[in-house]
Amino acid sequence: MSDATDPKQPKENQKNQLKELAIRLGVVQREARALKIPALVVIEGLDASEKGLLLNQVLLEIDARSYNVYSTHASHKELRVYPFLWRFWNNTPARGQIQFYDRGPYYLVLDAWAEDRLREDQLDDYWQRIREFEKQLHDDGVEIIKFFLTVPKKEQEMRFEMLEENPKTSWRVTSKDWRRHRQYKPYMKRVAAMIEATSPSYAKWKTIDTHDVKEATIELYQNIIKRLEKAIARKKADQDTPPAKRIWIPYKGKDFLSEVKFKSPMDRAEYKQTLKSRQEKINELVHEIHSSGIPVVMVYCGWDAAGKGGCIKRLVQGIDPRAYHVSPVGAPSKEELSHHYLWRFWKEIPRRGRIEIFDRSWYGRVLVERVEGLCSNEEWQRSYQEINEMEEQLADFGTAIIKFWLHIDRDTQLERFNARQNNPLKKWKITDEDWRNRERWDHYAEAVNEMIKKTDKPHAPWTIVPSVCKMRARIQTIDTTIERMEQMLKSDNKPAL
Amino acid sequence: MSDATDPKQPKENQKNQLKELAIRLGVVQREARALKIPALVVIEGLDASEKGLLLNQVLLEIDARSYNVYSTHASHKELRVYPFLWRFWNNTPARGQIQFYDRGPYYLVLDAWAEDRLREDQLDDYWQRIREFEKQLHDDGVEIIKFFLTVPKKEQEMRFEMLEENPKTSWRVTSKDWRRHRQYKPYMKRVAAMIEATSPSYAKWKTIDTHDVKEATIELYQNIIKRLEKAIARKKADQDTPPAKRIWIPYKGKDFLSEVKFKSPMDRAEYKQTLKSRQEKINELVHEIHSSGIPVVMVYCGWDAAGKGGCIKRLVQGIDPRAYHVSPVGAPSKEELSHHYLWRFWKEIPRRGRIEIFDRSWYGRVLVERVEGLCSNEEWQRSYQEINEMEEQLADFGTAIIKFWLHIDRDTQLERFNARQNNPLKKWKITDEDWRNRERWDHYAEAVNEMIKKTDKPHAPWTIVPSVCKMRARIQTIDTTIERMEQMLKSDNKPAL
Repeated sequence: MSDATDPKQPKENQKNQLKELAIRLGVVQREARALKIPALVVIEGLDASEKGLLLNQVLLEIDARSYNVYSTHASHKELRVYPFLWRFWNNTPARGQIQFYDRGPYYLVLDAWAEDRLREDQLDDYWQRIREFEKQLHDDGVEIIKFFLTVPKKEQEMRFEMLEENPKTSWRVTSKDWRRHRQYKPYMKRVAAMIEATSPSYAKWKTIDTHDVKEATIELYQNIIKRLEKAIARKKADQDTPPAKRIWIPYKGKDFLSEVKFKSPMDRAEYKQTLKSRQEKINELVHEIHSSGIPVVMVYCGWDAAGKGGCIKRLVQGIDPRAYHVSPVGAPSKEELSHHYLWRFWKEIPRRGRIEIFDRSWYGRVLVERVEGLCSNEEWQRSYQEINEMEEQLADFGTAIIKFWLHIDRDTQLERFNARQNNPLKKWKITDEDWRNRERWDHYAEAVNEMIKKTDKPHAPWTIVPSVCKMRARIQTIDTTIERMEQMLKSDNKPAL
Repeated sequence: MSDATDPKQPKENQKNQLKELAIRLGVVQREARALKIPALVVIEGLDASEKGLLLNQVLLEIDARSYNVYSTHASHKELRVYPFLWRFWNNTPARGQIQFYDRGPYYLVLDAWAEDRLREDQLDDYWQRIREFEKQLHDDGVEIIKFFLTVPKKEQEMRFEMLEENPKTSWRVTSKDWRRHRQYKPYMKRVAAMIEATSPSYAKWKTIDTHDVKEATIELYQNIIKRLEKAIARKKADQDTPPAKRIWIPYKGKDFLSEVKFKSPMDRAEYKQTLKSRQEKINELVHEIHSSGIPVVMVYCGWDAAGKGGCIKRLVQGIDPRAYHVSPVGAPSKEELSHHYLWRFWKEIPRRGRIEIFDRSWYGRVLVERVEGLCSNEEWQRSYQEINEMEEQLADFGTAIIKFWLHIDRDTQLERFNARQNNPLKKWKITDEDWRNRERWDHYAEAVNEMIKKTDKPHAPWTIVPSVCKMRARIQTIDTTIERMEQMLKSDNKPAL
């Protein structure tokens, strides 16, 4: 009963509670790390809501090998050459890691909205993109923990004044801060709208009043601990469940591949002449694309030995090497496997005016990973939508998306495999894996057809390229590229953010 | 004899030679890749010397998984927040990879010199830094291949005019290009001085006249092939040589550690009060450091259980998390092992105004790697100089360098190990490795003494911190940091580049 009478007691209790929670946080975090649980902690909040101080309280209790902090600055204009979410995709947690956003994508939207750089009717597009982002991470096992820190208007004013009084900290309070302060009520209304729009069951917001910083720290600790504990319990339960048996799920839809007609081989002299003029054309266009700031994503998929490399080579011959980059996509590295499967592709997404050429791509998810059983049925089935969402985002940003499926028949592949095998200079190009893949031709064909069916979109169309005649394939891929670039140069597409 | 009479024959011959060399380049490159040989190809040159085109000719023959291109732009002012060579260290080749510089550090120096942003007497410092960079890579097995592409003055003029005549390419010729063209002769003199200053036997320049682009391509191919073949022969010879037997090389110099005096434990109340005032002070200073744009590198080394973590925690408590970052240094990853051992640290070197805290550091090379035989004697012996060179560069850039060795005696370590072992909340902190390291205490002590002897410099001094009393150690590390920061704030150090 002494607690109630001693005036120092509540303070002492709070202190002990903080200490215990800090220790508990360390314990839970290490367990989450050991179980390879990734977590994303988003800390948004009003100005002077002590985000930095509170974030530091959390970081101090966490093993420095287990976390990263990404700070979002609305002023980082150089990042506007990338799609809105690019910087966040580049900063998603690896398994076992906690990623903190010291302000995140929400802040960029709120700030643009408050500064009238974003109209009310454009808002939902951005909330939608963020929802998709969080959903994709959640489906991949990331625990998403979101805080919005508030401070009462009166207290905010006091904190600003205290900073201003000290000559060493006065620079931290800007006229924008005071303007935002005067608009406290309408700004909070916008925050409420944001919370309303972005609170799915797995990524609900928790608002914390930071009037009493110690109390706020306690709330922060408690919430993170609770969420990590839940994630740990879920993960342990999952580990006890045997994995679902993998069965082949056939595709019964439209068969695009069998409709492909192969023409007779092109005349070599005609090919050489055509190629030369097309290469000159593409070189010119690339300069225009560069100066117009249009990003270009090119995807080359196709059967083994269909001639992807040769097509890419003919395309880039003569292009300034500063304008393009080739990403050869092989089996993912250990680091890549510890992230969402789209992470490694997001990292390579081109900035304005650059051309990124993917030699194989994210479509591996619904091709080799599906056919060889490298991911679960659930995983590849949901990835059509994930891929469509990513390509939509790129298209919204003004990216030209060009996707090729280089098609040959089974006999042509066999001929080319044998030719490679017998040519000492080309033997390195063929591996046992190529022969193995060949045995599953029918499954691959189904997977290709389903992929085209589900991911052929007006802003990201597939072009199926008959490649039995390599010369024709090379000309056609360049022609399609020229056409698409010319189209993009005519259109006008500048996103708000 | 038909060669001499048929006017088309020389052209035909050139074409065949190019084709053969292109194939040969592919073969040699794949062999170098298989042998894990890293190579750095630097392509510098005059304006309109067709660098892009020639580089592309090389890239087209190389497996896209085996190379990277880094383009240097003098206009990228945002990179000036990092030391001059930072961007190049971030783009060094992994083993088996070829890194191309489409213009490199030389261009930055030449450009600044030509534009009078660099005085003649500052030049040699930069040549020296580049020489050190190349020497460090060379010692680590990187084949360094450097080209300077030239074009006769008359031909340069013609190429500019051709570009200008076409409305689609005219923007590529700037007034700076023409100015540089008028100063052709003095510029070439500067190039000659550069070549004179930066041609060690392992990284000699090869100048190529690009008047005839096909001939230039042939020269480029031939040179790269020749150098890669040499590297391959050398690597094969090395593989046949048995590795040198590792023997412990004792250190006989000054014994810094045994001079350390441990004081009696600090009074806890005094500690708390002192800590509080020091933390307030450091928080203020960090804001000044931030606004003055001073980068800070902090290195915490010490015996296991000496209390590094606790010191770091007390330092950063209350500091804005956006101002500092902690790099915990553990065993290198596979990717890190495929680079020069300093590469992973260069990546974390702070930009202006930021504090990077290394929990363990590059000194691991001369401590754990030396003692445990994880690198050869030759490797750790040369690393004192490599480390000194890196720290000098940072200091030249205006970086505050603060290095701590946290010292305890052997008995104190045993006590702390046992305490950890018996505390369920701290048990995770102690591993079998800690116990193993402890057995080699004497070797470690020698290594520490030699490290301090060889890397204690006025611009990067070591502070040996007696840490038997953890409270004293925490206060002393913060005090030293405050002192160093105040000193840096008074000095003025802005590098030319």
